[in-house]
Amino acid sequence: MAVIKTEVRAGAYYDSAFLMQLQRSLAGLPGIQDAGVVMGTESNKELLAHINLVSPELQAAKPDDLVIVVRGETEAAALEALGKVDELISQRKSSAPEREMRALSLETADQRFPGAAWTLISVAGRYAAGVARDALRRGKHVFLFSDNVPVEEEIELKKISSEKGLLVMGPDCGTAMIGGIGLGFANKIRKGPIGIVAAAGTGLQHVASRIHQLGSGITYGIGTGGRDLSEKVGATTFRQGIDILSRDPETKVIVLVSKPPAPKVAEEVLQMAKRAGKPVVVSMVSRPVNARRVGNLHFATTMDEAAELAVALVKGVSGKTEDLKLERFASGQRYLRGLFSGGTLAYEAQYILQNYLPKVWANAPLNKENKLPNSFVSQEHTIVDLGEDEFTVGRLHPMMDNELRIRRLMEEANDPSVAVIMLDVVIGFGSHPDPASELAPAIAKAKETAAKAGRYLEVVAVVTGTDEDPQDLNKQIELLKGAGAWVSTSNEEMVSYAGRLLEALNSAEQAGVPAFTPADLSVLQKPLAAINLGLESFAANLEAQEAPVVHVEWRPPAGGNEKLISILEKMKAK
Amino acid sequence: MAVIKTEVRAGAYYDSAFLMQLQRSLAGLPGIQDAGVVMGTESNKELLAHINLVSPELQAAKPDDLVIVVRGETEAAALEALGKVDELISQRKSSAPEREMRALSLETADQRFPGAAWTLISVAGRYAAGVARDALRRGKHVFLFSDNVPVEEEIELKKISSEKGLLVMGPDCGTAMIGGIGLGFANKIRKGPIGIVAAAGTGLQHVASRIHQLGSGITYGIGTGGRDLSEKVGATTFRQGIDILSRDPETKVIVLVSKPPAPKVAEEVLQMAKRAGKPVVVSMVSRPVNARRVGNLHFATTMDEAAELAVALVKGVSGKTEDLKLERFASGQRYLRGLFSGGTLAYEAQYILQNYLPKVWANAPLNKENKLPNSFVSQEHTIVDLGEDEFTVGRLHPMMDNELRIRRLMEEANDPSVAVIMLDVVIGFGSHPDPASELAPAIAKAKETAAKAGRYLEVVAVVTGTDEDPQDLNKQIELLKGAGAWVSTSNEEMVSYAGRLLEALNSAEQAGVPAFTPADLSVLQKPLAAINLGLESFAANLEAQEAPVVHVEWRPPAGGNEKLISILEKMKAK
Repeated sequence: MAVIKTEVRAGAYYDSAFLMQLQRSLAGLPGIQDAGVVMGTESNKELLAHINLVSPELQAAKPDDLVIVVRGETEAAALEALGKVDELISQRKSSAPEREMRALSLETADQRFPGAAWTLISVAGRYAAGVARDALRRGKHVFLFSDNVPVEEEIELKKISSEKGLLVMGPDCGTAMIGGIGLGFANKIRKGPIGIVAAAGTGLQHVASRIHQLGSGITYGIGTGGRDLSEKVGATTFRQGIDILSRDPETKVIVLVSKPPAPKVAEEVLQMAKRAGKPVVVSMVSRPVNARRVGNLHFATTMDEAAELAVALVKGVSGKTEDLKLERFASGQRYLRGLFSGGTLAYEAQYILQNYLPKVWANAPLNKENKLPNSFVSQEHTIVDLGEDEFTVGRLHPMMDNELRIRRLMEEANDPSVAVIMLDVVIGFGSHPDPASELAPAIAKAKETAAKAGRYLEVVAVVTGTDEDPQDLNKQIELLKGAGAWVSTSNEEMVSYAGRLLEALNSAEQAGVPAFTPADLSVLQKPLAAINLGLESFAANLEAQEAPVVHVEWRPPAGGNEKLISILEKMKAK
Repeated sequence: MAVIKTEVRAGAYYDSAFLMQLQRSLAGLPGIQDAGVVMGTESNKELLAHINLVSPELQAAKPDDLVIVVRGETEAAALEALGKVDELISQRKSSAPEREMRALSLETADQRFPGAAWTLISVAGRYAAGVARDALRRGKHVFLFSDNVPVEEEIELKKISSEKGLLVMGPDCGTAMIGGIGLGFANKIRKGPIGIVAAAGTGLQHVASRIHQLGSGITYGIGTGGRDLSEKVGATTFRQGIDILSRDPETKVIVLVSKPPAPKVAEEVLQMAKRAGKPVVVSMVSRPVNARRVGNLHFATTMDEAAELAVALVKGVSGKTEDLKLERFASGQRYLRGLFSGGTLAYEAQYILQNYLPKVWANAPLNKENKLPNSFVSQEHTIVDLGEDEFTVGRLHPMMDNELRIRRLMEEANDPSVAVIMLDVVIGFGSHPDPASELAPAIAKAKETAAKAGRYLEVVAVVTGTDEDPQDLNKQIELLKGAGAWVSTSNEEMVSYAGRLLEALNSAEQAGVPAFTPADLSVLQKPLAAINLGLESFAANLEAQEAPVVHVEWRPPAGGNEKLISILEKMKAK
């Protein structure tokens, strides 16, 4: 019958790579059925219980204890295995690769290798914030792999780093790619024109890998840790990442990857992304997509789609920024008035405008809070569907009769707060035989009225129909254009153009300075050099990528005594 | 000073085209500033008030009254204009185009033109249901343009029509296209391989026009009226439309267009669309998009995108249906077990699976209702992120250490209810040096275990990484495939494949007979011939398209007396 034996070593600290290696060595010994080597945390006890490695000693162990449990076929086999633990530990030490660059503390590492701009930290969570603070004090960017770091510590670290123009990627940041070098878990991705900011580790790896598979490559992969997009942390690192990629001349397209952020934070991040000056692909997994495109933002439903979009966008990037000619408008002109004959077109317009304007009133609104109190009187941004029953009972539909719409057009044109009037012109059998012949003179007159009052009125129109319709699509378009209207056959294109225009007119004052010190791009552009604390394999990975690294043989300060650690911290801060 | 004069003609019925013509004629008379000719409804009174045409007589008018209001520069001019009303009415009558095919009732029209399979109805709303019932009795499809038809009438009409295998498109259906002929408001669209069902009039026109503009064309454009997708009406016509397009051999791609339906109805309609046997593009304007593709369903964020997608899909249609080889699975095998190392990949998998499975349990769920009670024990469909803290405190991450995942894989393989096991394999620096060398034998063993028990176990895997990673993407893929796994480098592709498989395994019993008599395709395929009641222009449009039509000089039965109408109705029903 199988026998379980347990050894507990109090207060011993080993990293998790070591624990795994020891566990495997023990499990491979003759007569041993299974082995567990863990720190004595509650969840580890559960894990071992699940594979039937339970003992009273394990149950009594504390989180700081190293616990070794073996199940032998006989008591002798189990005891023999435990007897080999010291030997296995020393074997492992001697088999560790020799490296020239080793140090016993961050301080000595920094002295010996002052060129290292980066610090990789993967020590146990309760020690990680202290080490990170130390690295920031030394002016280093931090890649913080450790998890189980309290959120208050994260907030404090990011306050320090953002003031100093430094990045804290993490905590719980699985991956990052800087200057072609992968940190933590990272794939070998070719250099290319796409920059990624990600609050999702395997998300970043997956999108970057797909970009590589599709033949393109990346400039930076900036990880932030998942909690960065919580309301408490407020996307500090995420916003720094967008800022860096906006300024980096090699980055032509930006990709944002995350689980859905806190709604307020998502809004802030997207507002910032709108001002990035380059195309931004947004992949906030499980956040419903309301538009494929909003200005420079392109929305993806999956990470795979995000990679495809980014690669496609690189090919199309013109480098030109759209000139909305805002200077044509008088101050005070800021509102939209949409006068539709087609209900679905009016509805879709409201739907698309959600991405640009905080509120659009309508007689047939998307949500009842947006219901226009009086359909005959516009207010702020308004879209009126003149085909609704209230306008058509006993009268002709506005697709047949332009009269009501032309009256309303003139009213709106006289309103000094109106900047854009939006129309649809639906032709075909059943519709007015030549709507543009009536609408075009009205548009010209409306624009003239505004011009006489010192304003500029933009009239945008979508024409729905075909070249085979009795009214002839192209003739209708030419007439409307001749009157000075901006015309498209795509409702999406027209509404999006108007949305960008109105958003710009309404948010001229919004663009402020970022609430952080911009990171120094020249430091990020230098070949990556780093100090590593925690998992040795992370140092080995950097060496494999030919990035210079010093590995610190880190041990918890003051033997892990928390009171002493706190005193040491306070002394350093002075 | 301007003077307003009003004339009220009690109980007179005229269609709205007539009202507009009379109004314009009056407004064009010398000395007349403005004129209004409307039926005396409340909203018409409001409309006239808004353009300053108010009078006590107008206020006192009833909905059945014809009200003529003029504002003259002088009282004489106003009175003179009113004096010309009879003359204008008679002028208009004599200028109406002569047509051979005219009748005074639906009955005589049907007798003279029995080949007409269609009836177009645009009479005033309160009479429309009666006329439609009459047309259905005569075995005709109905295009019901009239609005203000009570919902109870719509439900009753559609009950009759769906039992008879007839369509009632509407009420409030603005457009339809049958056999290349447009009904109501309709564009001239070339014939082509795309069929449309739309609960949105200008939506149908816009999508069809865009398809034409993009060089393709349509088979049918089936309008349903917006209320068809309400819970009360239950999408009767919409479902008939999908059924027709599914069976029509000329239709290669189906497009569905609507405002967002009642959630329950949307679900039913999409379930039916999944069984259409051809690609279906879904454009439910403002319904958030959670996937670009779900099986044969392709989701668009705008109508313009829907048209683009449909045209692109036509080119790619292979005509082949995917063979999921369901017969390999034993009865009772129906559940998914996803064992992930990458948190974001696990999260996205749940997100994508929402489109295929009613509920997926997870230790890191999308919504807390889906929280797996015990992370160590799977139930029904389950996705476990083994990289969550509960599994990793003091242990190596599953991207570095496959042990825990392999144990779990074996547990799941032994569960006779499991059909699919899903894995991610994330390679790169930091990850296990050769994960497939450990996972592949485990997968082979798991499949063997199931096979020995008379089951088939599908193991699907996504590999994230590149050909330049130390583990080599292609080598990892080959190893996994060698063990019998289904492998992709796209998470979306893998999860969607598994989703289709699991949906099919779980819904074999779902597919039932539609709750309606299928429409006779051969009738729909015949050249369109119709009887028109209501707006004369609709008959003229059909003539312009060279479709034979009889126009009925329709007048309200029993002089509009509702009591008498109701008695007549009852007599007919016998």
